[in-house]
Amino acid sequence: MKQIMEEKAQNYKNGKINYVTEKVVKDSTITLTINNEISRSLSAIEDSLEEFAVGYLFNENMVKSIDDIEKIEINENHINVEIDDKLLKTKETVLCSDSSGGWRSKIKEIEPISSDFQVEADELINRIEELKNNAQIWQATGGTHVAGIVYKNNFIVKEDVSRHVAVDKVIGYGILHNYDLSNSYVIYSGRMPADMVIKIVRSGIPVLASNAAPAYSGCETAKKGNVTLVGFLRGQRFNVYNNKNRIIF
Amino acid sequence: MKQIMEEKAQNYKNGKINYVTEKVVKDSTITLTINNEISRSLSAIEDSLEEFAVGYLFNENMVKSIDDIEKIEINENHINVEIDDKLLKTKETVLCSDSSGGWRSKIKEIEPISSDFQVEADELINRIEELKNNAQIWQATGGTHVAGIVYKNNFIVKEDVSRHVAVDKVIGYGILHNYDLSNSYVIYSGRMPADMVIKIVRSGIPVLASNAAPAYSGCETAKKGNVTLVGFLRGQRFNVYNNKNRIIF
Repeated sequence: MKQIMEEKAQNYKNGKINYVTEKVVKDSTITLTINNEISRSLSAIEDSLEEFAVGYLFNENMVKSIDDIEKIEINENHINVEIDDKLLKTKETVLCSDSSGGWRSKIKEIEPISSDFQVEADELINRIEELKNNAQIWQATGGTHVAGIVYKNNFIVKEDVSRHVAVDKVIGYGILHNYDLSNSYVIYSGRMPADMVIKIVRSGIPVLASNAAPAYSGCETAKKGNVTLVGFLRGQRFNVYNNKNRIIF
Repeated sequence: MKQIMEEKAQNYKNGKINYVTEKVVKDSTITLTINNEISRSLSAIEDSLEEFAVGYLFNENMVKSIDDIEKIEINENHINVEIDDKLLKTKETVLCSDSSGGWRSKIKEIEPISSDFQVEADELINRIEELKNNAQIWQATGGTHVAGIVYKNNFIVKEDVSRHVAVDKVIGYGILHNYDLSNSYVIYSGRMPADMVIKIVRSGIPVLASNAAPAYSGCETAKKGNVTLVGFLRGQRFNVYNNKNRIIF
């Protein structure tokens, strides 16, 4: 797998030293250029870049439909996309965000999700195990975040060094494969502050589940956006932070 | 502790539901303005902001000495700093980085660290436990990264929702308290890609240790910067990825 490199290391264990070759995740600088006007560089795994670009454009609220994307061109670690120029001009293009996700933390208005989607508690408990079992780069290197999207019986897993990019990739996959996002959910391995929950709200996805903790900003955004947050999904337990009606206990 | 808020949640465990009140970390939008010219917003815990500002300016290579900082003014979540205007003008001010750390991933030149500092294996093994034991917000909420700086017998721990800000805070603390950084090390809870290792190189700190994995970019940067990376520091074991002479086995 080209996303995995080898590094020589000294392993110390219970007082003994061994010279070992360890696997590490290969991260690259990826550049995304939109309409030759806006350009962003970020550290990510050079894989599933079309899915990433689609997910990113949706999650940044740059496009509303796959038809709004006129072209996606990938040359190694450069992604060029073209969208309708009017869409670009109408967006709040705050270029200097610190969020590794991009502009999303600058959102001022949230359109609450209206979806009567439901998922069973047992399914969530099983899916988080499946997520870990499918995280091949993580298993080899310990160096990735992992995200999955579930729609009906479909379950796709993507990994990345950036938790934001991993989630962009699975949402982009869902869009490219005509998933009904209002009846899908995302399950992933990272914490849940506002910047992640906003991404989920913008995608129209009703449930975000994670083995990790929400932050206060994530809980507030979930309430405004009517997203169900599931946190600390570990073993036979989890917490539900908003709209528990979407979970069938 | 004002960094901890309460959220109502439904806890599901082994088939039973309980209505619980859970603690979540309070993250805020912090704005850092430099010479009224450059402004950055980021999500962080509103605590130790002076330390953060000092660490950030050093780790971004904006200043080289505490004397280069003319003013730090903190009004709640706004930090205004003033540095010599000439320092600002000479920097590569890449404003639109995606890195949540800022500009640091844009560095082109690395000045390798020259330090004969050494630390004992047993000390690292003990310090990672001490780090966890001192991470009060993490223990209550599960929602933070934690970083510590060790200089002689001093060990200071800071927490943040951002791994970058946590490390900025401890390095800033060290600078404010006249630590000799070339004889200090940082121990923390996050992965180690280039953007984190560059921060350590810029600070002149010879050793970075973590319970988590390095990325390929982090290993490459450690070699260029002559930083000793210690990864997977867990229980009685760890890996050393560069310059093992700094570890006394």
